[in-house]
Amino acid sequence: MSPQPRARRFRSSGTAYRWDAVDVLEYKAEGSAPFKDVTRQVLFDEPELGVQWRYFEVAAGGHTTLERHEHVHAVLILRGRGEALVGTEIYPIAPFDLFSVPPMTWHQFRAAADEPMGFLCLVHSERDRPQLPTDDELAELRDASTKVAAFLKD
Amino acid sequence: MSPQPRARRFRSSGTAYRWDAVDVLEYKAEGSAPFKDVTRQVLFDEPELGVQWRYFEVAAGGHTTLERHEHVHAVLILRGRGEALVGTEIYPIAPFDLFSVPPMTWHQFRAAADEPMGFLCLVHSERDRPQLPTDDELAELRDASTKVAAFLKD
Repeated sequence: MSPQPRARRFRSSGTAYRWDAVDVLEYKAEGSAPFKDVTRQVLFDEPELGVQWRYFEVAAGGHTTLERHEHVHAVLILRGRGEALVGTEIYPIAPFDLFSVPPMTWHQFRAAADEPMGFLCLVHSERDRPQLPTDDELAELRDASTKVAAFLKD
Repeated sequence: MSPQPRARRFRSSGTAYRWDAVDVLEYKAEGSAPFKDVTRQVLFDEPELGVQWRYFEVAAGGHTTLERHEHVHAVLILRGRGEALVGTEIYPIAPFDLFSVPPMTWHQFRAAADEPMGFLCLVHSERDRPQLPTDDELAELRDASTKVAAFLKD
């Protein structure tokens, strides 16, 4: 039989949302953008697929950066609850929820106060850098609705 | 504020591994290839990402097609247990396990006899058609080890 390439395969370590041979990374370099208590794990980074498949975990009360960019996100919630801002809408977050984040759409994911929230997020390997809102853009977002203003409060 | 595109967003329906506005499809056309009790749901089909993100569910005792192809798979197990053949290795399957299936590598996923097994599978939107093993290739695979022979028994 012709030699078969071995599967690169990683075992999960139970339900701790950690994987053998997958490092738990900083979400972003500290101080580079506002966020709170987020880790990043790159589950797959496949040249053939052209995408990175990541798992992010937001600690209880934490949140990702409020940002937008040309590249899109496909998100599947794996654990926990919270709220997401996508565009000018606020959505509750529950396990297995799916989110599409279109190009240049403000978005932020927040974990509930009492439990971590983890999600899978798919992006193109080559992608533009996220943009942070200016003070004016933040003010505009807050004006979108009282729900958005409350979401962006802290 | 400039108009924001609305997020295309689908709510999950609890823990039933079904999603609003995501159809439960046949795995493949019946009779086109050997498989048993598998459904397919396309969670994301994003032109911008160039990939399809699918959820497959194999009923208790069921299995996917034994096949190979040039395109790669990135797989994350969401629920259940079972066994996977990748190349000439047999791996146990447990929730959150990760599998990479390299190009032209025989692979098959089997659910345990007593519970369904569900997994996320990422593929390129444009991809080659799967190849089924010839009788000779199947015999070669069976010769790889007694474990492989046992896996391919039925």
